[in-house]
Amino acid sequence: MKHHLKNLLPIAVVLVAACTNNQKTVEATKNDQPVFPKGERVSNANFTGTVWVNYLAETDTVHHVNIGSVTFEPGARTNWHYHKGGQILLVTEGKGLYQEKGKAVQVINHGEVIKCPPDVAHWHGATPDEAMTHIAIGTNTNIGGAVWLQPVTEEEYKYPDETK
Amino acid sequence: MKHHLKNLLPIAVVLVAACTNNQKTVEATKNDQPVFPKGERVSNANFTGTVWVNYLAETDTVHHVNIGSVTFEPGARTNWHYHKGGQILLVTEGKGLYQEKGKAVQVINHGEVIKCPPDVAHWHGATPDEAMTHIAIGTNTNIGGAVWLQPVTEEEYKYPDETK
Repeated sequence: MKHHLKNLLPIAVVLVAACTNNQKTVEATKNDQPVFPKGERVSNANFTGTVWVNYLAETDTVHHVNIGSVTFEPGARTNWHYHKGGQILLVTEGKGLYQEKGKAVQVINHGEVIKCPPDVAHWHGATPDEAMTHIAIGTNTNIGGAVWLQPVTEEEYKYPDETK
Repeated sequence: MKHHLKNLLPIAVVLVAACTNNQKTVEATKNDQPVFPKGERVSNANFTGTVWVNYLAETDTVHHVNIGSVTFEPGARTNWHYHKGGQILLVTEGKGLYQEKGKAVQVINHGEVIKCPPDVAHWHGATPDEAMTHIAIGTNTNIGGAVWLQPVTEEEYKYPDETK
């Protein structure tokens, strides 16, 4: 676990350095009140960059959902993955990116809701220069949870041209 | 619909008047950044007081949940009701009250998560002197939705003594 964090550190340093040119964004983020505390730092290989998770509701045999507030620091993102029962994302802070396999990367903003259909590979995360927090609701967890795939490469992790 | 709003207006005026003694609370609420816009004013008989709803995700035949951000102004609350498939509440702002039939009223605060089991009658809302916003997630909507019962009376709508 510690080895993994060490491996991520150079990436985080580069991202912080890349971010300093965008003073306005950094100030806006600093003034935000978090909806939920950002929780624990994620230290597994299913993510690139610095990610925090606050588990709000574990799945159970009654409601069949799990809920977590996930914070991606600039540049951070999930690996490609899919959910056996689907997922819904509620963006509560900042600006992020979302992509389904075979489709264009899209920008997702504070206030937006994304429905990820079951068994469709996708990834989500921050933009390169702004953090993003979403509430992630795993649905139909009685069918199954997330299935993790390969990391999102630097080539795949691209801000859509039209929003630059 | 218009008739109903008119009926609620005197209640709202009384609640605003009751609230002016608590300047600190009013100021704190005013400075909060809403996570989601508060949406449309609710104008049906399933609520007492002034309530706003922002529908974030309608139910569908894939995810089996519906999601709304609901804002209760001070004194406002749902009627008693239950959900055929259960519900989960994420308190995103302020302080509220929650009660299940036969149990004590409990205070629910910003950051807390409440799981309402299926078929258990309950109500939720603001405290008498502070607004509350929660994200309400209806679960297992393929089983059924909310079943509405009688209003929460002034006698039932009580701030628990131990938190006064």
